[in-house]
Amino acid sequence: MRYFKLFSGLAAGLLLTGQTLAQGPTPAQLAKSEELAQWALGQHLGYEIVESLTTEVGPRLAGTEAEERARNWAVAKLKKLGFKNVRVEYFDLPVWERGLERAEILEPYPQPLVIIGLGGSTSTGHQGVEGDVVGYPSLAALRAAEADELKGKIAYIGEVMTRTQDGSGYGVAGQKRREAAYVAKEKGAVAVLIRSVGTTSNRFAHTGQMRRVTSQPIPDGVPAAALAAPDADQLERILDSGETVRIHFLLTPESRPAGRSGNVIAEIPGKKKPEEIVLLGAHLDSWDMATGAVDDGAGVGIVVAAAKHLMDETKRPDRTVRVVLFGAEEVGLVGGKAYVEAHKDELAQHVIASESDFGAGRIWRFETRAGEGRIEAAQALGHGVKKLGAAPGGNTASGGPDLLFMRQAGVPVVTLKQNGWDYFDLHHTPNDTLDKIDPDDLAHNVAAWLSFVYLAANTGEYYR
Amino acid sequence: MRYFKLFSGLAAGLLLTGQTLAQGPTPAQLAKSEELAQWALGQHLGYEIVESLTTEVGPRLAGTEAEERARNWAVAKLKKLGFKNVRVEYFDLPVWERGLERAEILEPYPQPLVIIGLGGSTSTGHQGVEGDVVGYPSLAALRAAEADELKGKIAYIGEVMTRTQDGSGYGVAGQKRREAAYVAKEKGAVAVLIRSVGTTSNRFAHTGQMRRVTSQPIPDGVPAAALAAPDADQLERILDSGETVRIHFLLTPESRPAGRSGNVIAEIPGKKKPEEIVLLGAHLDSWDMATGAVDDGAGVGIVVAAAKHLMDETKRPDRTVRVVLFGAEEVGLVGGKAYVEAHKDELAQHVIASESDFGAGRIWRFETRAGEGRIEAAQALGHGVKKLGAAPGGNTASGGPDLLFMRQAGVPVVTLKQNGWDYFDLHHTPNDTLDKIDPDDLAHNVAAWLSFVYLAANTGEYYR
Repeated sequence: MRYFKLFSGLAAGLLLTGQTLAQGPTPAQLAKSEELAQWALGQHLGYEIVESLTTEVGPRLAGTEAEERARNWAVAKLKKLGFKNVRVEYFDLPVWERGLERAEILEPYPQPLVIIGLGGSTSTGHQGVEGDVVGYPSLAALRAAEADELKGKIAYIGEVMTRTQDGSGYGVAGQKRREAAYVAKEKGAVAVLIRSVGTTSNRFAHTGQMRRVTSQPIPDGVPAAALAAPDADQLERILDSGETVRIHFLLTPESRPAGRSGNVIAEIPGKKKPEEIVLLGAHLDSWDMATGAVDDGAGVGIVVAAAKHLMDETKRPDRTVRVVLFGAEEVGLVGGKAYVEAHKDELAQHVIASESDFGAGRIWRFETRAGEGRIEAAQALGHGVKKLGAAPGGNTASGGPDLLFMRQAGVPVVTLKQNGWDYFDLHHTPNDTLDKIDPDDLAHNVAAWLSFVYLAANTGEYYR
Repeated sequence: MRYFKLFSGLAAGLLLTGQTLAQGPTPAQLAKSEELAQWALGQHLGYEIVESLTTEVGPRLAGTEAEERARNWAVAKLKKLGFKNVRVEYFDLPVWERGLERAEILEPYPQPLVIIGLGGSTSTGHQGVEGDVVGYPSLAALRAAEADELKGKIAYIGEVMTRTQDGSGYGVAGQKRREAAYVAKEKGAVAVLIRSVGTTSNRFAHTGQMRRVTSQPIPDGVPAAALAAPDADQLERILDSGETVRIHFLLTPESRPAGRSGNVIAEIPGKKKPEEIVLLGAHLDSWDMATGAVDDGAGVGIVVAAAKHLMDETKRPDRTVRVVLFGAEEVGLVGGKAYVEAHKDELAQHVIASESDFGAGRIWRFETRAGEGRIEAAQALGHGVKKLGAAPGGNTASGGPDLLFMRQAGVPVVTLKQNGWDYFDLHHTPNDTLDKIDPDDLAHNVAAWLSFVYLAANTGEYYR
């Protein structure tokens, strides 16, 4: 992909492009990036930060008072660690909060089911809804249903997510979570239940946002919840036996149009080229049923610790290192969008960016999204990461969810790809807690990020 | 241990003792016990029975309508499988049922905690209770507390259970569950929380009965619940930091003095010595938060399938094989006690007994509790079990929880000891569901039990 190579707004008047004036890391810098990584493997700061966030704040849903407490925690922590220009950039968003959630099979075999409401779902009202269940093996099958087939009934979608190292199973499986409520409504259903997205067979249901929150109110689907995998199995067994399954389903979330979230920003100002920005991101908000240790407490710990180590263990970097702890990622990348709007005129000065938001598994691949002819230069930033065991990856890095809009605006990104084999066992479930993080794996991540940011902030290279 | 060797009530006038007239298995019978075991490894009936029970009944708490449905299921299933004398022996018991359950840290870091009420706990009332937490590392430490130390406070006990193959960690850890509410009350606490018994780090709290249900009403302790391990970690982290932790705790169970439970009994009448009984047990009730697949759906599947295979694959046994699916095990071995009372005059004719109630892990040891000089004879019943890989064990078998009173009355027992390494990850939590059972492991159990019951029901040996 080719990005714009000309733009305005450069404080120093530099063209941050792959030009002849660009300069990659020196042999001494490459050696230093390895040395820093080795040193950081023995450090515990990253884990201490996750522990502090998940213990002292706990769950921190976007737009709530808990997320406000998380911002206060972050501001205090970042100041205490010695970062400069620590600030919050606020933005507004609609807020959805969970109420009562209950489902039970009434017939033929009465028993409760473990569910969790999907973010943005409408309410069933306090009486709940009752209906016979019609099962579909996939979202596509529900889409293909006859118009009257679901009138007054409860739709169920059974699709199983594939476990993968790179998380690629999530995109497909997530589709049913995002669309089920609207498709079911079109077909006349009174509610929809889905098999949880995620890979665990533990009895945790998996939440997550339906359609993305925008400045518009959330659209109107039927009430929607996910069943834990064992409960989905149970429902499917009964449906497969040919029995009519009747369910009572109660979900009483509340929505309010205007809440507040914010991105917390902190910097290590660059010494030689302070106007050039290397952006390290993670998101501060979490889902509401757990303390969000892997999603995304781990990312917060990783990028903050890496930046702090850079500050303490190296001389002041040439470029400015900016840590952005995004708000409201979970409800639709709201913080990522707000950042791009607020920093529109400054995006051209973002030399490279990356977000850590895939848990605490070890990094196994270093991916880039750089301009034509700039891939090798961008791969050079992964020198220390690769010395830790990662392979070079392709040039289709996402950079991380909150960097979507930045990437679309032409900012080069890299992904320090984590092993996500177990990530979707925990992600968006009540089981996303601190004990699930291996401190050594987390240190490995911090080491990789430190070596990356050291090179990115101290070379004269560009990646557009 | 030496049991009575003389007793009355023998229909045939035989003395079921280790006398010269006794006769162990023939070489042909030993070979047949191996052959049956090998054959049964390829069968699926045991799993089908667990699937049927857990799907068609679901959770089945002692004394409730759900346990009644389980008995109806069992009677229908056992009749359909061709067992004779299928019947229910009813008994009364007090019934405790869960209400609302909620706990949250109010200060210093507001957040919800995952809890589960302990069976038999008193209610907090609908307002709940609020108090500062005082932590103790063990039940012993709580016992040693000063009398006024806990006035108006909430006690917390943090003891961690040891993971073991033989389940021996449970006895120690279970002590805090059984006694915490009463000890805390003596010390003036308003409530007590314990770290869950069990070995999982998943976010499931572990329930279980406090003091044993008897004909007397449940004694009066303070309201008591268990925290999931990650929540216990969280609470301990905050307590360790020196902060005062204030908690709100709501638990609204209800008790009623008189409910009904029952033991479901089925038989394969013996051909030569119908008055001599080989008893195979499991328990039908489960805790209320899961479908009780490993506790004790597995046991039901194992012993019913083994007996059914014996019926179909061998000629009619010499002795009567009696399958007993006990009611109300979880709330204090009530069914086991009722059985002994109802069958007092017949206990002498119980040649040997065993219960399967430790999940679906493979059998690794064959243990006996036989009379002096009868141990070798009892070990011979494990011939096929040992050919499947089990080691001979000692002569201190429990035989299974429901057999406690029978054993105390002198009935010889064996234990087909299952690998319980993972059992307490699931036991008494919402995660005890069918998907946790490996069908091949279950078949291994059925094979072992079939070979055992074949020998026990067809030899002329006695074990007192």
